[in-house]
Amino acid sequence: MPTEIERKFLVKGDEWRQLGTGTVYRQGYIPTENGTTVRVRLVGESGYLTIKGLSVGIARAEFEYAIPVADAQQMLDTLCEPPLIEKTRYRLDIEGIIWEVDEFAGDNQGLIVAEVELTEETQHLVLPSWIEREVSDDPRYYNVNLAQNPYSNWVER
Amino acid sequence: MPTEIERKFLVKGDEWRQLGTGTVYRQGYIPTENGTTVRVRLVGESGYLTIKGLSVGIARAEFEYAIPVADAQQMLDTLCEPPLIEKTRYRLDIEGIIWEVDEFAGDNQGLIVAEVELTEETQHLVLPSWIEREVSDDPRYYNVNLAQNPYSNWVER
Repeated sequence: MPTEIERKFLVKGDEWRQLGTGTVYRQGYIPTENGTTVRVRLVGESGYLTIKGLSVGIARAEFEYAIPVADAQQMLDTLCEPPLIEKTRYRLDIEGIIWEVDEFAGDNQGLIVAEVELTEETQHLVLPSWIEREVSDDPRYYNVNLAQNPYSNWVER
Repeated sequence: MPTEIERKFLVKGDEWRQLGTGTVYRQGYIPTENGTTVRVRLVGESGYLTIKGLSVGIARAEFEYAIPVADAQQMLDTLCEPPLIEKTRYRLDIEGIIWEVDEFAGDNQGLIVAEVELTEETQHLVLPSWIEREVSDDPRYYNVNLAQNPYSNWVER
């Protein structure tokens, strides 16, 4: 079963910026009624369609397929609920662990989140100095929720 | 833009059976909130994921991707709303026009529907003798709706 185990953290300062380069992401969601996530994503010049099941703890089933860029653009423009998520993702290799730092733009400007994908839930993780605090359990930070209730709307952060 | 133009008819008698061979289909839907159709389908030994926009007249945008059979099975079992659609599809070539006759099983047993895909909305079409009547405009016959309100539940047919 393809399963994703992720931990998510808020980022402080700019020290992380010198550690990797960024790629522009544009993504949106087809809203569902049963908690399944249907995501359309443009990553640089590539398109993807991703289906994710409900989370069970910090694990969830994930199915991702490469699709033509023109299909992704048309689905983003006509089938996904606005606002779309716009962000630059920086991929940092820190002592063999891949950290993905997402710097959001548009309606989520000001938010910077770091994600790390683990091979098992109990894996030991050394936190870099630019990590502020963990938000793995806060559903507001799910990208699907940032599309519906963007960071610029939050009263409490 | 990938677009599908279909006309749909009820079928009478058995004369059509000698005109082609059947393939077993099993399909389900991830329920959405904005009228988009997200369909997972097993066709014989192949898997597909299909996204369709809302119909505009008898035309609609359609995006279909081949996916691994194991992915399709897992999505059908865990992410699609029961009951699944089970049917045998017969593909008939009648004077150069491809007719697809769907003989439903399970909760839709007793229903037999013929579909034809056209290149333009105004294309002339000769109806075979085993066609009963057109149901293109009746949303009850959409497979996505047959999954929610199967034929066996209908009071008026």
